[in-house]
Amino acid sequence: MRFAFTKMHGLGNDFVVIDARETHVAIDESSARTIADRHTGIGCDQLILLEPSTTADAVMRIWNHDGSEVEACGNATRAVARLIGKPATVETAGGLLTLTPNDNGATVDLAAPRFAWDQIPLAYAMDAQNLPLAWDDLADPFCVNIGNPHAVFFVADVDAVDLARLGPLIEHDSVFPQRVNVGVAQVTGSASLKVRVWERGAGLTRACGTGACAAAIAAIKRKLVTSPVTVTLPGGDLTIAWDGGAIAMSGPATFVFSGTADIA
Amino acid sequence: MRFAFTKMHGLGNDFVVIDARETHVAIDESSARTIADRHTGIGCDQLILLEPSTTADAVMRIWNHDGSEVEACGNATRAVARLIGKPATVETAGGLLTLTPNDNGATVDLAAPRFAWDQIPLAYAMDAQNLPLAWDDLADPFCVNIGNPHAVFFVADVDAVDLARLGPLIEHDSVFPQRVNVGVAQVTGSASLKVRVWERGAGLTRACGTGACAAAIAAIKRKLVTSPVTVTLPGGDLTIAWDGGAIAMSGPATFVFSGTADIA
Repeated sequence: MRFAFTKMHGLGNDFVVIDARETHVAIDESSARTIADRHTGIGCDQLILLEPSTTADAVMRIWNHDGSEVEACGNATRAVARLIGKPATVETAGGLLTLTPNDNGATVDLAAPRFAWDQIPLAYAMDAQNLPLAWDDLADPFCVNIGNPHAVFFVADVDAVDLARLGPLIEHDSVFPQRVNVGVAQVTGSASLKVRVWERGAGLTRACGTGACAAAIAAIKRKLVTSPVTVTLPGGDLTIAWDGGAIAMSGPATFVFSGTADIA
Repeated sequence: MRFAFTKMHGLGNDFVVIDARETHVAIDESSARTIADRHTGIGCDQLILLEPSTTADAVMRIWNHDGSEVEACGNATRAVARLIGKPATVETAGGLLTLTPNDNGATVDLAAPRFAWDQIPLAYAMDAQNLPLAWDDLADPFCVNIGNPHAVFFVADVDAVDLARLGPLIEHDSVFPQRVNVGVAQVTGSASLKVRVWERGAGLTRACGTGACAAAIAAIKRKLVTSPVTVTLPGGDLTIAWDGGAIAMSGPATFVFSGTADIA
């Protein structure tokens, strides 16, 4: 199979993007894994496929490095915005997204967050925004669904948290029947947060876009910061604006190279 | 800097090859590291640059993933042979190499091995081919220089050796003033070996071409096998032919994709 592609990254989260809006390219779990291999393939965290859409500018499909297809990836969506190069809408398994590219990145409008316990989802009817549970020193998380489930813990120093140990414990706790992304957030100013995220199924990552959104919304709702919020992740900064409806996430996306491959 | 490149691999050891024989491309330690980065660059184990030569078909220069320039890489040389696409000679910091491509790889003629203790080099005048030293159960290595220094230990089961622990101990032993590549070899037939290599400066790798040569020559000289020798490495097989002069190493090299980048 011969296809053209573009390699991009957003805050170090890297993608192979195949634009199949005009020429069909067939991707499945096996070919996604082959393409994502960093030694014998092109190499990427996620493979992104753009397909024709009858209602939007494109359908965006996303495969993780391990070949599993997933609904959403905020960093990849900014990369797609730059690739399309003009304001656009894309269909995803997680819903319709509105993209606005700029000179070095993009703003992506994500659907409004959901707060009800059964929308996170939690296993029981509980106060999802002040969940009365603790794992060691991590207590009272703010839970919210940003297309995927998040639990955000506010702490004085995010770097002091042993997230590699506590992340998987919380992710797999029975109170989260679809598991959960685990964020720790530190307020660093009236409109700024420092955030680290244990990603469901992926572990510690450099820049989780939906994790940045979850932390910003949690901090706005708890009146710790005001919108727009600058969220500093290990890989760099995202800006999250939210006034109660859709979430606007802004950040960089970078072209690395373009190529033609004959694999998979 | 804008440049075209080809991504290739040999037994899973992967390369970005830039053919600058006709169009100058400037590479230094910093740009090599940028290009080799697997998230924000093209990603590779080694970056290979082909430059014009007045005496051979090309000059081949090699940078490791960490930006350091090195003399030799057997797997990369096969990739270059396929890229050039016809019998050729290339100048390297390790000497002149003769390349003969075939349908799925190449044969590379490496310079004759050197055996004298001060050519390995060792720190003292010792019997380099029966070095009277032991590190735990690894004893009496056969030392040889294949453009770079190697110590080969024969064992009954290469997989039973804790090479991740013993490799760095031996590599940094004071008897090897320029450090050493550490191979363990198991005779599996009258013309076949199974080999694992701890590479100097790189650790455990899937397929060390010069390590395969060192093991084959050690086994031929100790009359354990006859040439040509099939050497099975974790990444696959190489064939080493040697009759006392130059070494002929044959194995696969695979095109993955071609691209154009604007980085570094």
